[in-house]
Amino acid sequence: MSGFAAVDVIRVKRDGGVLSDGQIDWVVDAYTRGVVADEQMSALAMAILLNGMTGPEIARWTAAMIASGERLDLSSVARPTVDKHSTGGVGDKITLPLTPLVAACGAAVPQLSGRGLGHTGGTLDKLESIPGWRAALSNEEFTAQLRDIGAVICAAGSGLAPADRKLYALRDVTGTVEAIPLIASSIMSKKIAEGTGALVLDVKVGSGAFMKSVDDARELARTMVELGGAHGVKTVALLTDMSTPLGRAIGNGIEVTESVEVLAGGGPADVVELTLALAREMLDAAGLPDVDPAAALADGRAMDVWRSMIRAQGGDPDAPMPEATEVEVVRADTDGHVAAVDAYAMGVAAWRLGAGRARKEDPVSVPAGVLLHKRPGDPVRAGDPLYELRAERSELIPAALAEAARAVTVAARPPAAAPLVIERVE
Amino acid sequence: MSGFAAVDVIRVKRDGGVLSDGQIDWVVDAYTRGVVADEQMSALAMAILLNGMTGPEIARWTAAMIASGERLDLSSVARPTVDKHSTGGVGDKITLPLTPLVAACGAAVPQLSGRGLGHTGGTLDKLESIPGWRAALSNEEFTAQLRDIGAVICAAGSGLAPADRKLYALRDVTGTVEAIPLIASSIMSKKIAEGTGALVLDVKVGSGAFMKSVDDARELARTMVELGGAHGVKTVALLTDMSTPLGRAIGNGIEVTESVEVLAGGGPADVVELTLALAREMLDAAGLPDVDPAAALADGRAMDVWRSMIRAQGGDPDAPMPEATEVEVVRADTDGHVAAVDAYAMGVAAWRLGAGRARKEDPVSVPAGVLLHKRPGDPVRAGDPLYELRAERSELIPAALAEAARAVTVAARPPAAAPLVIERVE
Repeated sequence: MSGFAAVDVIRVKRDGGVLSDGQIDWVVDAYTRGVVADEQMSALAMAILLNGMTGPEIARWTAAMIASGERLDLSSVARPTVDKHSTGGVGDKITLPLTPLVAACGAAVPQLSGRGLGHTGGTLDKLESIPGWRAALSNEEFTAQLRDIGAVICAAGSGLAPADRKLYALRDVTGTVEAIPLIASSIMSKKIAEGTGALVLDVKVGSGAFMKSVDDARELARTMVELGGAHGVKTVALLTDMSTPLGRAIGNGIEVTESVEVLAGGGPADVVELTLALAREMLDAAGLPDVDPAAALADGRAMDVWRSMIRAQGGDPDAPMPEATEVEVVRADTDGHVAAVDAYAMGVAAWRLGAGRARKEDPVSVPAGVLLHKRPGDPVRAGDPLYELRAERSELIPAALAEAARAVTVAARPPAAAPLVIERVE
Repeated sequence: MSGFAAVDVIRVKRDGGVLSDGQIDWVVDAYTRGVVADEQMSALAMAILLNGMTGPEIARWTAAMIASGERLDLSSVARPTVDKHSTGGVGDKITLPLTPLVAACGAAVPQLSGRGLGHTGGTLDKLESIPGWRAALSNEEFTAQLRDIGAVICAAGSGLAPADRKLYALRDVTGTVEAIPLIASSIMSKKIAEGTGALVLDVKVGSGAFMKSVDDARELARTMVELGGAHGVKTVALLTDMSTPLGRAIGNGIEVTESVEVLAGGGPADVVELTLALAREMLDAAGLPDVDPAAALADGRAMDVWRSMIRAQGGDPDAPMPEATEVEVVRADTDGHVAAVDAYAMGVAAWRLGAGRARKEDPVSVPAGVLLHKRPGDPVRAGDPLYELRAERSELIPAALAEAARAVTVAARPPAAAPLVIERVE
């Protein structure tokens, strides 16, 4: 009778109806156990994408995904816990400097991260550029490191929200990633299950983000903020611009290098600005509103936590990054100002260079990626280097060159300034 | 890259776009070969159900399904070929008397039929009530019987439209049966591939049919008539009422018995009326507009062809039907007229008695079903038998009784007469 029941659930959503609590609990559990088949869940996911879900449906769906696995207990960590999640962007290495920075300011940051797929990179892929560093920790190692250092970035264990793990892989191959109810419940089920006390969401908007419009991003942010509140996790969201890559580095090893520059008190202005904005939100959510994160960047405390955090997971923070064997520098052919660097096109260029993967099982290249010599607003003269492409194999360069050429526009006048933080949702 | 391409096709339809000919050809072929996965096709089917398809998309999809297998060549059959397809109803045994009747009038009827699933019965299930009769014929046996007798009802071979076979099974478990583009292309791909020269469609409307409204039925009929014409198969459709079961018998063996009554010149008036209406359309479509099928029923020629047809497939037309061991007669508790016998509820009642199956691999019961003693419009007195339920196991009776009780209404006045043939589409 299970097949019949699955069809009944699918039909309700297909016909624009509202799923009952019992239907949601059953279908999420039965899918996790393999009783509801992949082809049934993908039809349901498409119906959800096209017909939507009510607030209470999303809340129940999220609760069912949390209930599919364990929920970590971080009460042994003496400090307030606060995490950050980004919906994914190009050059978005913010987690790397932000996690040790917030820990240096007195909170504990239990950051469970993922790998990249498609044109956006993954935090774990970036950190794996560091020789010896390992992403997989046991729950005990995770809690202990959080207690001792206050900062941990690692892979989510298989016990957390297994329903989401299975559903996410399915959505990826069935064109059902872009459903706000499914995005919100996927993110929030994992963050709530990891046991954090507070959460700051960086919801990206623009060509390089899943959400192309501010309206969609706002809806996603509001949905997630409500879900967090309903589960006792104080949650706020910033909508931030992702029409341009963050910083100058897009790749794995080169993003680690740029992150270390930020921790050393330097780095690109936009990366520093967003890191500090998110750190302030996190400290505020953790009940530490009076701590100034800028001071912890400036005086090296954040860098100290970074080094401890990397070492605790087997990494050598002093190891040099491998260099790319193939480097192609692209220069401006006229004078003017950089008018735009399109995040999506540059993300695809880096992906084609080997920095990203097409399938889950593919490896990623450590040195591959794009380094921007100029960013939007910068003046250029003909012959100035605009950006360089880096790869391990020369045959990857031409396709990336074509993408990158589409990304960059040089114009007579500089573009109007656009704010990095667009809106705050709480 | 195949997964990527499937996602691209899904996204086009998900976002309300029009699939290209190349995308349709590729996705149907790749699904048949197993390169596109079930979960991808089910997401696409849901997107088609919710966002629709244009006429050219449906035509291309149908052509791709035909191209997935063989197309039979019936040119060795000297007579004109004409087939009939019903979209499925309750008590719809029309194929059984109609096929030999039209053959008796000079056409050849290549009737490839299916099995029942859910509340509607299947022609092959009904015929398998006859001891010895076999549904599976080779292409050579099929063509030879058509040439020699002019009438054959059998299972479609696995070589015909294998894409449809696979897709139909998928739609059944994913809530995507009710999409007009998919229904139309499923039916027409098989009928065109079987090689018939002309086709008459019986598109059912009402509670017992897939199409609940005349508008939906008309759209489906028009879509199929166009598809037939585009492939050189002269196609006409009748929209016919399925708010009430056809005839008095709903089941397998009891529908064969009723069909033989019609072939013997008797039988319920509505079954005779619809059989003759469809026979006239078929003969007209086959280029034999002047032949009167009523005469071939009255003088026993249709019965002769029936007996030859059943014998040719190993069946004994004189074998008695097994009787049900459990019979429950339900009587009227007031005087009045039968106002309604709901087709859907009676179909479910027969299904619960064992006449239908819940899963493809389930067996069906030969004697199980419902026999109506009264039909809408009939006068009744308190104590008169209204209908009887038949089963092989007594524990199946109570649930069926509840369904049947919902189906039948007795009122003071008879209902307004409703036409059996609602509309003709060509």
